[in-house]
Formats: sequence, C-alpha cells, structure tokens
Amino acid sequence: MAFKAQVLYDFTAEPGNNELTVKEGETITVTNQNIGGGWIEAQNSRGEVGLVPEDYIEFGQTAAPPANVGNPAAPDLSFFDAFAPASTSAPTQASNGNDPWSVWNADPSRGSNNNWPANPEGTQTGRNAADPWGSASHSHPQAYQGPGAEDDEWDDEWDDMKSTSSYSEPGEGGAIQRGGTHASSMKISLNNRFPGFTKSGPELYLLCKQSAKGKEKISIYLGEVGPVWSYPEAQLDCIVADPKKGSKMYGLKSYIEYQITPNTTNRPVNHRYKHFDWLYERLLDKFGSAIPIPSLPDKQVTGRFEEEFIKMRMERLQGWMTRMCRHPVISNSEVFQLFLSYKDEKDWKMGKRKAEKDETVGVMVFTTIEAEAPDLDLVEVEQKCEQFSRFTKAMDDGVKEILTVGNEHWKRCTGPLPKEYQRIGKAFQNLSSVFTSSGYQGEATLTDAMTAAGKTYEEIAQIVAEQPKKDLHFLMETNNEYKGLLGCFPDTIGVHKAAIDKVKEADKLVNTNKITAQDKVTMAKRASTMSYALQAEMNHFHSNRIYDYNRVMQQYLEEQVKFYETIAAKLRHAHSQFTTM
Amino acid sequence: MAFKAQVLYDFTAEPGNNELTVKEGETITVTNQNIGGGWIEAQNSRGEVGLVPEDYIEFGQTAAPPANVGNPAAPDLSFFDAFAPASTSAPTQASNGNDPWSVWNADPSRGSNNNWPANPEGTQTGRNAADPWGSASHSHPQAYQGPGAEDDEWDDEWDDMKSTSSYSEPGEGGAIQRGGTHASSMKISLNNRFPGFTKSGPELYLLCKQSAKGKEKISIYLGEVGPVWSYPEAQLDCIVADPKKGSKMYGLKSYIEYQITPNTTNRPVNHRYKHFDWLYERLLDKFGSAIPIPSLPDKQVTGRFEEEFIKMRMERLQGWMTRMCRHPVISNSEVFQLFLSYKDEKDWKMGKRKAEKDETVGVMVFTTIEAEAPDLDLVEVEQKCEQFSRFTKAMDDGVKEILTVGNEHWKRCTGPLPKEYQRIGKAFQNLSSVFTSSGYQGEATLTDAMTAAGKTYEEIAQIVAEQPKKDLHFLMETNNEYKGLLGCFPDTIGVHKAAIDKVKEADKLVNTNKITAQDKVTMAKRASTMSYALQAEMNHFHSNRIYDYNRVMQQYLEEQVKFYETIAAKLRHAHSQFTTM
Repeated sequence: MAFKAQVLYDFTAEPGNNELTVKEGETITVTNQNIGGGWIEAQNSRGEVGLVPEDYIEFGQTAAPPANVGNPAAPDLSFFDAFAPASTSAPTQASNGNDPWSVWNADPSRGSNNNWPANPEGTQTGRNAADPWGSASHSHPQAYQGPGAEDDEWDDEWDDMKSTSSYSEPGEGGAIQRGGTHASSMKISLNNRFPGFTKSGPELYLLCKQSAKGKEKISIYLGEVGPVWSYPEAQLDCIVADPKKGSKMYGLKSYIEYQITPNTTNRPVNHRYKHFDWLYERLLDKFGSAIPIPSLPDKQVTGRFEEEFIKMRMERLQGWMTRMCRHPVISNSEVFQLFLSYKDEKDWKMGKRKAEKDETVGVMVFTTIEAEAPDLDLVEVEQKCEQFSRFTKAMDDGVKEILTVGNEHWKRCTGPLPKEYQRIGKAFQNLSSVFTSSGYQGEATLTDAMTAAGKTYEEIAQIVAEQPKKDLHFLMETNNEYKGLLGCFPDTIGVHKAAIDKVKEADKLVNTNKITAQDKVTMAKRASTMSYALQAEMNHFHSNRIYDYNRVMQQYLEEQVKFYETIAAKLRHAHSQFTTM
Repeated sequence: MAFKAQVLYDFTAEPGNNELTVKEGETITVTNQNIGGGWIEAQNSRGEVGLVPEDYIEFGQTAAPPANVGNPAAPDLSFFDAFAPASTSAPTQASNGNDPWSVWNADPSRGSNNNWPANPEGTQTGRNAADPWGSASHSHPQAYQGPGAEDDEWDDEWDDMKSTSSYSEPGEGGAIQRGGTHASSMKISLNNRFPGFTKSGPELYLLCKQSAKGKEKISIYLGEVGPVWSYPEAQLDCIVADPKKGSKMYGLKSYIEYQITPNTTNRPVNHRYKHFDWLYERLLDKFGSAIPIPSLPDKQVTGRFEEEFIKMRMERLQGWMTRMCRHPVISNSEVFQLFLSYKDEKDWKMGKRKAEKDETVGVMVFTTIEAEAPDLDLVEVEQKCEQFSRFTKAMDDGVKEILTVGNEHWKRCTGPLPKEYQRIGKAFQNLSSVFTSSGYQGEATLTDAMTAAGKTYEEIAQIVAEQPKKDLHFLMETNNEYKGLLGCFPDTIGVHKAAIDKVKEADKLVNTNKITAQDKVTMAKRASTMSYALQAEMNHFHSNRIYDYNRVMQQYLEEQVKFYETIAAKLRHAHSQFTTM
C-alpha cells in the first residue's frame, strides 16, 4: 500500500547507498514501509525511488491508521477529557514542540526556540508517526518481526555509517536535532495494553485495580538525602569494545558488531546498533514514565570517516551503557540483564519475545514501585515536582551554554589559532633563512636558534590543534550526554505533573460521582508513590551528576595544565638555544 | 604669497586645534607657509582656513621655486644627462614610488604594492616638496629662523599629541605610511652647495677637486668581518626620560619636553620633539648618502590617549637615540655631540647655526671617508652592492611578514580569545550556581571548585589580553624599527648604484674627451671608497641586527614561557580544589 508523505527535513542521499535525496516540504510516495532499520522506500515526483529515513518524513492524514477505534469493553474514562485536556496531553505537546521545557511554560510561542519545525496540530513527528497510538509491540513491526524464519534478517545498518561528532545546536548545520532531547520524548507509552483506550495519561495507573506481580518490585528507601532507589551491593558495569564489520545479503549490506562484556559474567556478548536500539525502546516503554531514558547516540547525521565514526559511536554507546549500568532500576531489570548476559541465540530470542510482550510498561511501571515511607501530601508532591522542573530546566540551560561556548572554542582551537601559530613559526624561520644569506660571519647560533624557535611554534600549532581532543572532547561528551538526559526530564516530569492535576480534580470527581471516595484516597496514595519515584530518580541524578562533573572538571583541568606546561617546556627549550648576552 | 597646492592624502582636523580637514585630490590655497613645525595654513574652496600638515600636500608647478637658475661659474656637468639619466634619478624615483625597493626592479608596475599614490612624473612628495632642490639651510626656514630675537619661538608641537601604536601596513587604516620607509627616503641631499647644479648625483663627489678638512676624517679599517667603521672605545649611550608638558603663547600651544642624559657627561639636557626632528634632518643631510638614517617615530597618525601616546613616543625616541648612539660615525659627529651635551642655551644656538651651515653634506660626506685598504675593482664593488640590495630587500620582506603576523596575533590575543576564555569562565560559574540551587546535600566542594575554576578562566582571559604588551610589543617595536631602517637602504644603495653606473661610463667619457684619464682613475678610486663605506655600514648593520634579534627573540620567548607557566600554575591550583576520587 502506497502512502503520500511530507518531507520534514532536507536529506541528502549518500552515493551508492540506494538513498533518495529529498527536500523539506516535498511530497513523496512511500512505496515500501517494510524496509526496517529506520528507513522507508519512497518515490519522488520525478519518479526516482530510494531509501529515506523514517524520521525525516510525516505521513499524510490518509496514511495514518484510524486513531479512534472505540472498544466498548473498555471502561469509560472519557470524563477526564472534560476536566483536564491540557494536562493529559501535556507530555505529548512537549514532545512535539520545539522546546521540551515548554511543558511548564504558558507561552506557546516559546516552542520555536530550538528551530524545530512548528507543529501546532500536535502531529507526531517521531519514527512512529504513522502509528501515533501504537502499542509497544507494534512500534517496530518491520524491524523486529520481519518475514521469514529468521526474525533478525530483513534489516540493515547502513545507517551505522552515519553519525556526527559535533555539538551543534539544531538549525546550525543539519536539520535533525541530536541526542536525547528528541527521539525519547515522544516514545513514552502513556497508553498501554488496554485496547480501545483512546486517551493516554497517568489516570491509567492512578485508578487501576490490578496490583503488580511480586517478582517485579522496585523498592524505594529513605536515605540520608531523601528517597533513594535500592542500590545493588556490587555495581554493574560493562565494556563496549572490539567493533567488527560484518555483512550480509551477499555483501550488499554491512553492519558493525560490538562486543559487550559485563563485569558480572565477564563473558562477552555481541550486539549490533539495532540491538542497542531495541534495548532502548524496551527501556523507554517500560521505565520512561518514571526514569529518563537518554537516547542512544544518534545515527542520522552523516559522519566523516568510517573509522572515526565507529570509534565515536562506540565511545558513546559505552557512555550510554555505563549510565544504564549505573542505574539501580535499569541495571536490575530483566531486559537489561538479558541484553548483557544472554547465554545463546535461543536464550536471546526467547528473552526478546518475552520483553516485547511485557505489559507493565508506560505509567503502569509505577504499580511495581513501593516506597517504604509515609505517604506524602499533595502540596509537598507538587513542590518537589516544581523544584525538579526548575532545576532541570536551569541545568539544561547551563549545559547548553557550555556546549555552545565549547563548540566555539573547539572551532578556534582547531582552526584559526593553530594557523596563526604556524604563521608565526614560518615568519621566524623565514627571517632566519634571510639572516643565513647575509654572508656575515658568526651568526649561526642566532639563525639556528631562530629556526628552532620557528619550528617550536609550528609544533605548538600542532599541539593546540590536537588539544581539544584531549580535554574539551570529554567535557563536551559529558555535557552532551547530560543535555540528552535533561531533555528526557520534561516528559518524565510531565507525567508527574499530569498525575498531580488528576489528583487535584479528585474532589470534583467524587462530588459528581465519577469516582468513589476510596478512589480518591488511592489516587493520592499513588501520586505519593510517583513522587517518591521522582525524588529517588532526582537523587540518583544528583549523585551521578556530582560524580560526573567532579570527574570531568578534574580531567579537563588536568589536561589543560599538561597542555600549558608542555608548551612552556617547549618554549623554554627554544629559549635556551639563544646565546645569553 | 599664496600658492595652489594639491592634497595628497586625507587629513581629518582635530577639533579645537585650528586644523583643516582636507581630502585626497582636493586643491587648496596655501595662505601661510610660515607656520613651522611641519604645518602650513591653507584655505579650501569653501573659504575655510586652517592648518594642514605640510607632508600631506603637493605644491603646484607654479609654486615651486625656479629649479634651473644657471650659474655660469659652476662646472658644466650636463654631459652626464646624455649617458645616464635613469641612474642618476634612480634614488629620487625610488623615493617617490610605492616600493622603496623598486630601484632594483625593472617592473614599474610593482610600484603600487604599498598603496602609495602613484607618482609617475617623479614629483617630490616629501615635506620639502615646494623646494625640491633646497639646500639644508633653507629646508626649514620658518621653524628654525623665525622672526624675532628668540629663534625658537614661532613653532608649535600640537602634533606632539598625535601618533600611532599600531603596526598596520599602509592602506589598512590611515592614508600615511609610517616609520622610516617614507620620510627619510626623499630627504637625502643629492644636491649640494654648488649653486646652479641642476642635476644631483654621485658625480659631485666622484669628480670633485676639493679634499675634506682634516678634522672630519671618518676612518674605515679591515676587521675580521671585512671593512668596519672605527668604533670608539666606550660606547655612547643615553636615557630619554621624564617627559614634561610645557606651554607657550599664553597656554595656547603646548609641547612635551624630554630629558636626555648621555652616559658621557651624565648631565641631562632637555629637548622637544622638534629638536629631535632638527637633529634627524641634520643627520640625514650629512650622512644619508652613506648611512641609512631611520626616521623619527612618526607624528602624523592620531593617537588614543595623551599619556599612552607620550609614553609610546618616548619609548620610540629612546629606541631611535640608542640606535644613533650605537653608530660609531653618527655618535662621533659634532652635531650629535652638540645635541647630547650642549653646555647652555648659547652653546646650543651657536652649535645649531654651525651645523646648519655645514657644507659637507649629501654625497660630499664621502670626501671625509678614508679606507685603510687597497682599492677595490669595480666588479667587486658591484657584486657587494647587489648582495646588500638582495639581502636588505629579503630582510624587509621577512620583517614585514613578522609585523603582519604579529599584528593579527595581537588582535586575536586582545580581542576574541580573552572573550572566549571569559565565556568559558562564565559558563562554569553559571553551571556551578545552578548546582548550588539543587537542594541536594554535600555538593559544596564541587560547586566551590567549579566556581573557582570559572574564575580562573576569567583571570586567564585577563592574562591573555595583557600578554601582548609584555612580549609581542617588544618584538613588534624592534621589527618596526628595522622596517624603518630597511626602508632607508634603497636610497643609500641607490646612490651607490648610481656611482657604479658613472664609473662604468668613464671609458666612454675619456674617449669623447669629456673627462681625463686621471679623472677616470679618481672616479674608480672614489667608487672603491664608497664601497668600503657601504660595506662598513652593512657590517655595522649586521652586527647590530644579530645583537637586536638575539635580544628580542630571547625576551619574547622568556615572556612566553612565563605566560604559559603562569596559566599552568593557575589551572593547577584550580584543579587542586576538586576532591580526588
């Protein structure tokens, strides 16, 4: 079935990769949605056919599956619409707007801050655009449930060859925003396995009757700093290494396989980028309402050299995995453990199917959370929520400032500055060689020393140009990671905020007999549990943040000291070659 | 008497100084030539009257004093015209062309390299433009022979308030080229005290009958490096210091008086800028054909602050005086000794008058030079000349390259670079203050350390911005001085080259009975003397150059080492404030 689709961003085809160049605003016909790996096949108005990234297009209205298939068996929760349409849809709006922080912002015009295309209708722009209400099990039908016996077969990883190592803000270079601020924010399954539920929202959890299965309990304790997750005794860790190129379909498609070795089993497992992506989707579905799941290192922007790209992706996958390992809830989860330590192919496939069928996803994850602490009243819940929102927004600004300044500094250090040192070096050397031609006796000491000084400045040029890779790189990577992580908070906080709004309406609902007085008590109790979860997560975030920034600042300064000392030593040596007078 | 004059360069009047703004190409009427101090009074086409720098205008043909007042008593040397018009006029052309180095260059189009206005007719553009053949005693009639008993009265030094501290190439900012490449090159009195000589040139010396007075002998010896001047046992030196502001004409005009203390008498004398200028004129007239006399620090470009300007001018006057003191011929001359150690006002005035009446100027200075060495043959003389020409041209290029690169580096170090460090510092501090607002316990160590690191980068910004004054400044000043000095060589070498051409014509002149065989022998001998003088001067130049560049490179590198070490130490301290993990 062919759909019309609208191109959202410019995309330039890479030669020889069967891709199709498209322009923003162009209408194309989707000829094959079953390509997988984030790609679709499309035909443009000139009849050319090729692959286009799924994320770059928006399906037309006719192409979208019907959104409102009412299920008469489902309970009628439509009354929520009448009271709080804004709050229930808040996370979705935040996802689609330009500024993920606009969830707390009354001014809708703020949404255009980040150069994201305005999307006032709230149309989904994510990769599941054609299926905005799709449940988790249907979100990647082609990628993971392709035809044939081998469910892993019909996918490709050409996109493995694409990435970026720059920290540009969107709109500066490419059309696509990087990192976690984008993809994750629209993937939280606010909806669930209740077929026919047309509205999503925390009410699913606040009023649900079922209790979680015992084995899945996530505990929260009151620690010194407040509510904290239950941390394991030994911290999980893993090493991502040894990227190997593989190919399939008679060499037509190639992919990179990484070796991941957890410190628990010390036995390496192999995973391709798409497996990481699968894991990310599972974690987002399952924990995204309570825990910000940062996006994987993005794969949309074209890289420079294959080797550099693979190294950069591996480094970022390592960073992502390390962060996941450090999280007590995620690292302890069945799906994460499966990823790190599956025994064999059969084990992996069975685990995958089980994970994809997991029903405790979206807001329902809160049913598994138990706080060993007295219930909080709503005022406190709300205060905490506001505080976290302010803090994460402020930190997001601070992190972005560092990224902007760092990016400029990077450019200067690798561009004009070393060129200038090189020119200084050349100027000294040139003058020295003029002096050598003087025919005057006994100035060899001077000319040798001047030539050496000139060469020293050429060396300094090299050192300056290479320095950012040694210090700024790590500072940028860490801040970039935090930018991604912070970009997930608005959604997580949005779910929380929506729940608070629901609880606030409880009296009214009781009065109009929409819910019972007991329901109201349950709602408050569950909002309290949600707040404990948010606080535990914030405390986890703070503790990691302090660790990370302490480390990155130290490393940066250490390398900067080395940098200045190296140059000073080189210049001291150059100086010593002149005769003292 | 009112003359019409053409404006050569844009000049913007300073408010309140009775100056007149004029534009390049404008025709003005000179209403008073008797202002002195390098200024004339002029009226523009709108009837406005005001002062304009003499150097900025070119007098019309009608205004120039008659150039050809034949003196029947003078020997007829006009035959030289027929044989070598190009070579005799070469130094003059070089002076007026854009590139002082074009004397050796066959391509006339090169002349436009330096953005000097093209002047194909060879019209004089110097400050003595109205009197191109004027003798030394008439070159500044108003400045030094004004009306009234006090011959020092009617001058002003408003221009003392103008200077530049930039190293821009001409055409970059102002209309006037700076330093020695300009004024000096056209001031060599090729003509002399032989009234009626319409052509100038080395023939005056090559064929003159008179011998120099005994007391004025300048000796050249054969040293280790070749011909050298006779150096004094103790090197003369002086300190220029203590600038004091004075005023006259009831405070209408102000000037700065500097205190100059020579190491010989250790007794300070006072001089104003115009006295330095007078000395410069005397030295140029007397020695310019044999010794490059660098221009004084220029006074045409508007400065920024009075204090900064005075400091800069004093520093440059010191540099100029030091160079003059170091020169064995100049430092030993009567006029220079007078300047440094006149006993009283009467002594100074008598000395001045005597110096202004000195007849051994221009090429006649060679009559006082005696080389204690066998005569050189013309081939060797010519080879040396070519070699010096190549070297000084090449060094001029090298020096200008350093000035260009240094100027750019200066701009970066005082502009964008410190701003960037400041922004890095601010970004760290901002993130630190966000962290402080987290409400999470126990992160004071981190936030204090981050704030300190941020402040350190602000300090680094300051250090970076101030560094050029500590190292680049001296490097630039020295190279700027050399640029000025090297700009004088084309004229000095031009005189030499013209003499060689004359000697080459000797056979022809003998054959046509224009000169005797004995004249030819005399010419060759004198060309040899000129070559010894040039070689002695080049050896003096080389020895000074080696000393100066050794010193300046050492100082530059020393300060650079300090710079990098200071920053490293600051960063090491910032690093130590983080907790080790």
